[in-house]
Amino acid sequence: MKYSSINLQAKLEKFTDHWAPKIVAEMNDYQIKLAKMEGEFVWHSHAETDEVFIVLKGQMSIEFRDGSVELSAGEMFVVPKGVEHKPNASSECSIMLIEPKGTVNTGEAGGAYTAPNDVWV
Amino acid sequence: MKYSSINLQAKLEKFTDHWAPKIVAEMNDYQIKLAKMEGEFVWHSHAETDEVFIVLKGQMSIEFRDGSVELSAGEMFVVPKGVEHKPNASSECSIMLIEPKGTVNTGEAGGAYTAPNDVWV
Repeated sequence: MKYSSINLQAKLEKFTDHWAPKIVAEMNDYQIKLAKMEGEFVWHSHAETDEVFIVLKGQMSIEFRDGSVELSAGEMFVVPKGVEHKPNASSECSIMLIEPKGTVNTGEAGGAYTAPNDVWV
Repeated sequence: MKYSSINLQAKLEKFTDHWAPKIVAEMNDYQIKLAKMEGEFVWHSHAETDEVFIVLKGQMSIEFRDGSVELSAGEMFVVPKGVEHKPNASSECSIMLIEPKGTVNTGEAGGAYTAPNDVWV
């Protein structure tokens, strides 16, 4: 049987849109997604799940109501469930997200930045 | 409040042993682990869970009973639950693993390579 690796850089080159996570793999009931971001996202939270951010390229910050964390390529952070957060990237940043199937990018907030959550790349 | 990123390279520099995954973060009931490998591991499977391999540095292969996959830095693969596999690395390779809490590195096989599954770095 032929087994193929998933090359993250090759996947990143296949899309250009921001704030629209793309699924690259599934593990049990979880999905691994890639996303590009630039600018400020919306304040939101995920009532049911923690959310993993791993920066693959560039830099980003995640603001919280009481602080923030800066992330560069090779760094990660887990946002606990229910915690309001707002991702920001002053220039384009590429990330990996790990979260349960069905997680919506804007969580409980909704709004214009809400992206489909079932798009593969 | 002070929030701190998790720097994967800094975590990798904190240990040298092979085939002994170290936890760096938790997300819901899952853990993100780092491991270094060199040489051939044992054939094993995980009856209850898929297992994510993401190569951070170096190269490895995962053998299956009917094929294999080669992984370089920036590449990943999800081994489906129940599928026998044997990781190999001809020279030292550093990886990220994503799997449920309590997952044992040798799965159903046990044996001398079985490592504690609750060690943080």
